[in-house]
Amino acid sequence: MSGKADDDGKDNNNNDDDDALALHKRLRGKIEVRSRLIIRSMRDLSLVYTPGVASVAMDIARDKKNAYTYTSKWNNVAIVTDGSRVLGLGNIGAEAALPVMEGKAVIFRQFGGISAFPICLSAQDKDEIISIVKGISPSFAAISIEDIESPKCLAIVDELQSGLDIPVFHDDQHGTAVAVLAALLNALRLAGKRLGDAKIVVAGAGAAGYGIVSILHKASARNILVVDSTGIISRDRKENMNPYKLRIAELSNPEQVRGSLQDAIKGADVLIGVSGRAGIVSKAMVRSMSKDAIVFALTNPVPEILPYMAKNAGARIVATGRSDYHNQINNAVVFPSLMRTMLDLTIKRIEWDMLIHVAFAIADLVGNNISERYIIPNMMDHRLLEAVRDAVKYYPTQ
Amino acid sequence: MSGKADDDGKDNNNNDDDDALALHKRLRGKIEVRSRLIIRSMRDLSLVYTPGVASVAMDIARDKKNAYTYTSKWNNVAIVTDGSRVLGLGNIGAEAALPVMEGKAVIFRQFGGISAFPICLSAQDKDEIISIVKGISPSFAAISIEDIESPKCLAIVDELQSGLDIPVFHDDQHGTAVAVLAALLNALRLAGKRLGDAKIVVAGAGAAGYGIVSILHKASARNILVVDSTGIISRDRKENMNPYKLRIAELSNPEQVRGSLQDAIKGADVLIGVSGRAGIVSKAMVRSMSKDAIVFALTNPVPEILPYMAKNAGARIVATGRSDYHNQINNAVVFPSLMRTMLDLTIKRIEWDMLIHVAFAIADLVGNNISERYIIPNMMDHRLLEAVRDAVKYYPTQ
Repeated sequence: MSGKADDDGKDNNNNDDDDALALHKRLRGKIEVRSRLIIRSMRDLSLVYTPGVASVAMDIARDKKNAYTYTSKWNNVAIVTDGSRVLGLGNIGAEAALPVMEGKAVIFRQFGGISAFPICLSAQDKDEIISIVKGISPSFAAISIEDIESPKCLAIVDELQSGLDIPVFHDDQHGTAVAVLAALLNALRLAGKRLGDAKIVVAGAGAAGYGIVSILHKASARNILVVDSTGIISRDRKENMNPYKLRIAELSNPEQVRGSLQDAIKGADVLIGVSGRAGIVSKAMVRSMSKDAIVFALTNPVPEILPYMAKNAGARIVATGRSDYHNQINNAVVFPSLMRTMLDLTIKRIEWDMLIHVAFAIADLVGNNISERYIIPNMMDHRLLEAVRDAVKYYPTQ
Repeated sequence: MSGKADDDGKDNNNNDDDDALALHKRLRGKIEVRSRLIIRSMRDLSLVYTPGVASVAMDIARDKKNAYTYTSKWNNVAIVTDGSRVLGLGNIGAEAALPVMEGKAVIFRQFGGISAFPICLSAQDKDEIISIVKGISPSFAAISIEDIESPKCLAIVDELQSGLDIPVFHDDQHGTAVAVLAALLNALRLAGKRLGDAKIVVAGAGAAGYGIVSILHKASARNILVVDSTGIISRDRKENMNPYKLRIAELSNPEQVRGSLQDAIKGADVLIGVSGRAGIVSKAMVRSMSKDAIVFALTNPVPEILPYMAKNAGARIVATGRSDYHNQINNAVVFPSLMRTMLDLTIKRIEWDMLIHVAFAIADLVGNNISERYIIPNMMDHRLLEAVRDAVKYYPTQ
């Protein structure tokens, strides 16, 4: 968290873009593939490569699982995108997604010790993406799906996970859901409210909205309303639906109400904005929420409502996705240690129950330091890895 | 070259297999993806990842070529295989190919400074492989096709190269051809013979045979006979043909003779064995060759004829593919410096003319030290990179 930030605005550095461009030009690649040994003689070469490597290849041919023993597979993660929804920039394509995926690989490496390689795809067709990822999967111990537009990404993740025996992690869906639940658990503790009773409005029904609703429902939340650009999602709505919104409708809106975001938000205890639309929440809407309201306005770079406005309108706890405000709800709190843990424990697939355990463990790190300005640990918190590992390790069904 | 080797046999270490297995178990991956920077603050993070990286992504969205300026693309090579013909082990599959491809990546890194990642494919269908490689190409500056069975690999390389604007290198074809031509130029110099006049027999019509015939013909050899398991390849032969053997027939066998390997070899100045079949050349066959015969028996691990037998039968210059004999014709002499050069000069496609220049430059490094036991430089020769770079740089049509 930046020490310069306060609730009244952001500490903006106009040179950020120039600095980022200069840094990238200087590095010309934030990651690289390195060798873990040095060949000093032809004898070395004959062990590392042919003819010696043949015995290793044959041992894996006998049993594919031996690839985890003899090769880098155990620690290799493919960061896969088609560049169709990169950050908030839209469909800017595979090459333009590359620096973003490299940034992700840097975080995977530094905070999880993971060997992650960006696979940016020129194909944007769902079935083509699935067959490419299945095709390249033998080199990897896990797949991380990134910045593919919704609901295409959700279908890709589901189909890949059924077809592969390695975990298919989807940060927009899984990572966001865990980070939001962790922060929400602490926010509710501060507000003296219970997840099972709270009225929760989720603005946005893309991958993040779907993930959040899935984890909240699994964690016992029962009074959820989800609003997209068309309005509140309900089972009988016909416009602007897809299979995942139908699933959302099954997990939310118990009374099957219809209406706008403004209607939904009235009397809500919690508002979670993952709409991708800046400024859609007004002060009046926040004023219509219940006492001790919790507002997570997570759209980047400009949130659904600016933190100082939400505070002025009576919200007690406010969080965003940005590092220059307090309470940054950042997937980077989750994904490096979660991926590290899944690789170490060779978890084959991601389950919501497991992710709930992870969220509780992350929330717990805040401990007695909890305050309106500290509801989620910082991504650089060194306790994260152990906490997440324990949560998954002792998760009963693994 | 091993100091222990001599022409009478090989210095075999029976512990090689055990040592290779132990080394691979200890390393658990010969390569890894590393970060080239350290995130020390949220400010660092905001330059490396979102929000700062957005300006970099937008600059690439404006012009894809900027990916070469801001990302690792310029130095990334995908080492692609389907595991269908790994070393001499046959179709052992993608996972089993992984340690071999990692070995290649290690060589690319150490001798070329290249960031090469193994992409082992579960798909073995030609068109599927092509669409996967095209799909993942945005992350890479070059593709290296490895250990795919022939003629499928040749069709894949051709189709990929027409469809992509990055070079598609095929070591079995291109690398072998360059190494063979380099060694042959020096062998012919020793024997006092000319490439344009020499009768050359190539045993094997897979990727290596196709590449060798292509480069030799382009380099002015006109008296070539190619023999596969069916016999001498000719235009009118109907059995066991494919489009690449038809192309071989057009570049060889000017008198359209038919017959066996034994028939072909009579009176030959040069025999190049890339048949994949151990021991198919007898001493009698070598005795039937012309004076000062040159025998390259390149099949690994057991060559077409053992060097001491070829020597005893009268061959003047003998080479194999093994490091434990003199005159190892090893693609590793070629591919790291050639790939380094192609990346640095952003060569878009590989041409035989360019490869001939490379072969001449590599042959030239032997210089006045030339002897029957030294016709090609060692892969660890530090002059290779500069020699290959100059050869390509001053190659006129680039």
